[in-house]
Amino acid sequence: MRTRYLLIPVVATLLAVPLGYAWVDWSRSGPGSGLYSHAWTPEPAQAYWDPASFYTAPDTVAGVFAGAQCIACHDAATPGIVADWRASGHARAATPVMCPACHGDDHQVLHLPDPAVCGGCHDQQHGEFLDEARYGFPSHVLAMERAVEAPHFVAKPKAEVQACAQCHSVATKCDSCHTRHRFSAAEARRPEACITCHSGPPHPDDATYFASAHGQLYLAEGAEWDWSKPLVKGNYKAPTCAYCHMERGRHQVADKALWKFGVLEINPNTSANRVLRARWVELCADCHPREQAAAWLGELDGERKRAWRKLGAAERTLKALRGDDLLHPGPGERPAYPASLWDRYFPRARIGFYEGQASAFYNVSGIERDYFEMWYFANLGAYKAAAHGDAAGVTRGHAALDRDLAALTARAAELRAAGTAERSAGGRRADPGTLWLDGPYTEYNRAND
Amino acid sequence: MRTRYLLIPVVATLLAVPLGYAWVDWSRSGPGSGLYSHAWTPEPAQAYWDPASFYTAPDTVAGVFAGAQCIACHDAATPGIVADWRASGHARAATPVMCPACHGDDHQVLHLPDPAVCGGCHDQQHGEFLDEARYGFPSHVLAMERAVEAPHFVAKPKAEVQACAQCHSVATKCDSCHTRHRFSAAEARRPEACITCHSGPPHPDDATYFASAHGQLYLAEGAEWDWSKPLVKGNYKAPTCAYCHMERGRHQVADKALWKFGVLEINPNTSANRVLRARWVELCADCHPREQAAAWLGELDGERKRAWRKLGAAERTLKALRGDDLLHPGPGERPAYPASLWDRYFPRARIGFYEGQASAFYNVSGIERDYFEMWYFANLGAYKAAAHGDAAGVTRGHAALDRDLAALTARAAELRAAGTAERSAGGRRADPGTLWLDGPYTEYNRAND
Amino acid sequence: MRTRYLLIPVVATLLAVPLGYAWVDWSRSGPGSGLYSHAWTPEPAQAYWDPASFYTAPDTVAGVFAGAQCIACHDAATPGIVADWRASGHARAATPVMCPACHGDDHQVLHLPDPAVCGGCHDQQHGEFLDEARYGFPSHVLAMERAVEAPHFVAKPKAEVQACAQCHSVATKCDSCHTRHRFSAAEARRPEACITCHSGPPHPDDATYFASAHGQLYLAEGAEWDWSKPLVKGNYKAPTCAYCHMERGRHQVADKALWKFGVLEINPNTSANRVLRARWVELCADCHPREQAAAWLGELDGERKRAWRKLGAAERTLKALRGDDLLHPGPGERPAYPASLWDRYFPRARIGFYEGQASAFYNVSGIERDYFEMWYFANLGAYKAAAHGDAAGVTRGHAALDRDLAALTARAAELRAAGTAERSAGGRRADPGTLWLDGPYTEYNRAND
Repeated sequence: MRTRYLLIPVVATLLAVPLGYAWVDWSRSGPGSGLYSHAWTPEPAQAYWDPASFYTAPDTVAGVFAGAQCIACHDAATPGIVADWRASGHARAATPVMCPACHGDDHQVLHLPDPAVCGGCHDQQHGEFLDEARYGFPSHVLAMERAVEAPHFVAKPKAEVQACAQCHSVATKCDSCHTRHRFSAAEARRPEACITCHSGPPHPDDATYFASAHGQLYLAEGAEWDWSKPLVKGNYKAPTCAYCHMERGRHQVADKALWKFGVLEINPNTSANRVLRARWVELCADCHPREQAAAWLGELDGERKRAWRKLGAAERTLKALRGDDLLHPGPGERPAYPASLWDRYFPRARIGFYEGQASAFYNVSGIERDYFEMWYFANLGAYKAAAHGDAAGVTRGHAALDRDLAALTARAAELRAAGTAERSAGGRRADPGTLWLDGPYTEYNRAND
Repeated sequence: MRTRYLLIPVVATLLAVPLGYAWVDWSRSGPGSGLYSHAWTPEPAQAYWDPASFYTAPDTVAGVFAGAQCIACHDAATPGIVADWRASGHARAATPVMCPACHGDDHQVLHLPDPAVCGGCHDQQHGEFLDEARYGFPSHVLAMERAVEAPHFVAKPKAEVQACAQCHSVATKCDSCHTRHRFSAAEARRPEACITCHSGPPHPDDATYFASAHGQLYLAEGAEWDWSKPLVKGNYKAPTCAYCHMERGRHQVADKALWKFGVLEINPNTSANRVLRARWVELCADCHPREQAAAWLGELDGERKRAWRKLGAAERTLKALRGDDLLHPGPGERPAYPASLWDRYFPRARIGFYEGQASAFYNVSGIERDYFEMWYFANLGAYKAAAHGDAAGVTRGHAALDRDLAALTARAAELRAAGTAERSAGGRRADPGTLWLDGPYTEYNRAND
Repeated sequence: MRTRYLLIPVVATLLAVPLGYAWVDWSRSGPGSGLYSHAWTPEPAQAYWDPASFYTAPDTVAGVFAGAQCIACHDAATPGIVADWRASGHARAATPVMCPACHGDDHQVLHLPDPAVCGGCHDQQHGEFLDEARYGFPSHVLAMERAVEAPHFVAKPKAEVQACAQCHSVATKCDSCHTRHRFSAAEARRPEACITCHSGPPHPDDATYFASAHGQLYLAEGAEWDWSKPLVKGNYKAPTCAYCHMERGRHQVADKALWKFGVLEINPNTSANRVLRARWVELCADCHPREQAAAWLGELDGERKRAWRKLGAAERTLKALRGDDLLHPGPGERPAYPASLWDRYFPRARIGFYEGQASAFYNVSGIERDYFEMWYFANLGAYKAAAHGDAAGVTRGHAALDRDLAALTARAAELRAAGTAERSAGGRRADPGTLWLDGPYTEYNRAND
């Protein structure tokens, strides 16, 4: 009899596995892509950012064409892209790589190439790119997946998050860095290939690089450098993004990442991180004395330590408010993310990176949003500045952190005072006010919940 | 007897017409220019921005000179401008166009050429430029007129609005785009010719273009492109401002404007606007598939719809405050624009584009200014980003719109609470506070009223 | 008897002189440099910014080497810097200037050259640079000294003020402007040589120059200009920083400074300043009519007058608050600068330039910090824009000044209201609140006091 009862959990567990697989399959089968595919509908432009998932060729022209025929017609229709192809390695190869090799030859079912198509020939680069997945995110290869599986991406109106998908398409196509149809390595060695996306808050890689001595040299003289040269020491007076982050052209940017984009605190002195640090110093030694490189990177450690001290103070303040039920609107009072069942039944303010801070993009109380902005904008700005040698940017970023911390501390005191007043007046909760509760996202969430 | 009385309005009307003409004549006869010419005095530098109206040659050198004599002397005095002229089409023409052709030959009454002088030879370009007037403002040809006839331009201290006149001088001289004395078409094909003015809030055309893939290609490779080529398909790897907005070199930017600079909501689906849209798609098709261009422009429509939903919510909030007499200082409590008789006797808060929102530049209550900034900075930043393909800029602009709307909603609630408290305490009006009421503009207005 | 007593002050005075010298000697003998050398410890990176004071060579390689030996080894170790040297005037001289000339020949005691080393050969440039000291600060030659002797530099955590030292190192080494190891005059003629430091708030020299017509011409065409030409009229279509501020290559930027960086109000019409103005007009006349140059510089005067009117209003508001003991935390309530004995025993809020406004960088009440930001960011942004011909920047800067003044005026009113309430409730002082009192700097100050 006992064994019969014991069978219940065993059978339930055995059933859970195929049910889990089936649920994931169903979950990925909606109009969007990713785990929340049923919860969002892609914009038409998504077809160009994630072509393998969403692109369908227009049936404007019928017929099967050879490369020379494509060229003959497109020379008149879109001469720019043909000129770019003519200037490419593809055209100049002994056996030219022509249009059908990447797009197919049936004009009614043309496809836009994804990385696997390029990887058919460029095996090494594609392999390095896929290898990034081992190191998790941030990385290029996981960029689209992580974007479309973020609750805030799913919940927001698509017209406002097209920016996310557009840059995160670096995972789903190769022309983010090598523009159509020249696909030039020389082009991708220049910072412009990277900063189309790596720019603006929260990742001012462009501004901080250009503000550095490296960047100023590039701006002043880059137009005269010979970009056909590989990224090895002695070839360039100053490094560009790729020189340091894609050493010698490797298509793997994740395996040397130490400070993880500045979003979470790390200990730079673990043995694993000492190995990474040594790799950085070795790279800097292409031009600088190792001692100088180590001193500079030590400055970065110091900057990070101070930034995290400030962020920690803010985080503790928020957690104390949460503990005393002083966040308004609190979790449970505000609409849940449509994508998250868990959030609906077990609502909880996520404070700090490990609790899922990124979900504080919106739909939170004012002070949570303040902390989010302190963490995401002021902190990352200071980090990028320190990492890229933009001295003034460090000062600016820390001034912003100070201002943000002072404002947050003042706001927390007001919330406490208001809470005390209300309790003494009969325990009434504070009216949550309208900040972030009545905004358009929230209406959208309500409508879609 | 009845007919005698009927004559009164007829005669009055007949008299009103010549009196109206006389008034306009008088109104334009002051030291400034435009309808409010008596209400402002130009800065000395205005002579260089609107030379036809204000420039008088210094009488430093006396004599009547032929071109060769001008060159002989200025080769020593100002060799840079002579070198530029030598590099110009003017110098290389079969019959060179020399200095007196544009400046006159009597050194004591030299003039600075206005568009009509250039139009003497460049008839087609000048005609296209004048033709913009049919499409109203925004346009280049009406830029100066609209600047000097705006009440806020007239009312503000001239030292602070020199910027307006300087850029709006695109209407009154040709060297805004073609720098002296090379007057090169190649130069004007590059974005720098445009962004001297089209930059910064509220019109970050520069930042949003440079952040786009188009702009990044220009930044990386533009120095190597052959700018002597005309702006037709196949000649450039990426478009610049002029490629799209002055197709094939036409000096008419107003006739294809669809979203009207982002300042007012339009319906993109009227039949007239569908024709404009088709022209844009056709232009994009120089390089991109029509379907992709249409999808991108659809993204812009979506972005605008969301922006106007937010602006509409803010506008309704303000109008409700006005209806309940909760704007402080209200119209009538603050000094009127010196230029506007109407405003003095029929004061009214102007909320929204159709009521004259632009007059909220200053001298309004805090919350009106907040809405002005939301509309003029956050909204236009988002629009320009969406229109130019700056994905991150859209996100940034809408984050700003959200923040602004949340702050404005909170402020409106405070004003309502304060209003209720005062009414219950005996109907006293809120003290207007000092925001925008005691600033230097207001003092200036008071002094000049 | 009387004479005996009279001797006391005489002897005391005589003793004071050597004691003063001894104190200064002791004061400069700490681990940092400057008068407060005992109060701060340099970051390791300071060795590269002030090598004469802090650099010690690593003892990695032993031996005494001749130039050819250095090259032989470094061609493999750091080929980039060798390539730069080969492209330099040093390498192409009849008798090449090789590595030991600047670094010494004993590898274990190598030094990094300071300006005196470069001045050994480049006597004229070094002399001009030293001559700046006559004009005080702002100047290049006094930059490091003034940085490390500023109380706020000494008091702040070093990780956050590395930016100060890094740019102020223009005083202590020559490769701030002429990058290693090409040391090219051509390079220093381009704006990038200057804007590595002259950028960002509070000195947006880069943004304001690039926004001007001069800057736009440089951006569009600078890559094609012949930078080997000296900075004299006729050689360049548009001026760069050095063309105007280091006329004809003089290494002296301080002797033509009129508006003193915008930090204090000056009278442009003193006879000394009229002479300076005439020098500026003469410089502009390389390309422009003198009348136009004078009109433009008159615009700058007008802009400054309006800015100082706004700053003056803010300053008067703050001084009135101080007079009525309404600044909280007031001086004496907040920790003193560790570097300043005087501040500890005679605490006093420093309001306005002449009282030492720059010390309001931090550790002050909220409203003092507000004024600091108005003065340091909004004001200097407007000034740089007016001085460099960035028209829109003037508008933007003055809009910021207006907003700041309005906010400061509102905040002052709140402080007054709170003060009145407290006095009527028994004279209790306002609780100072937490702004700037509990921030990390203050904790640091407390810990180090």
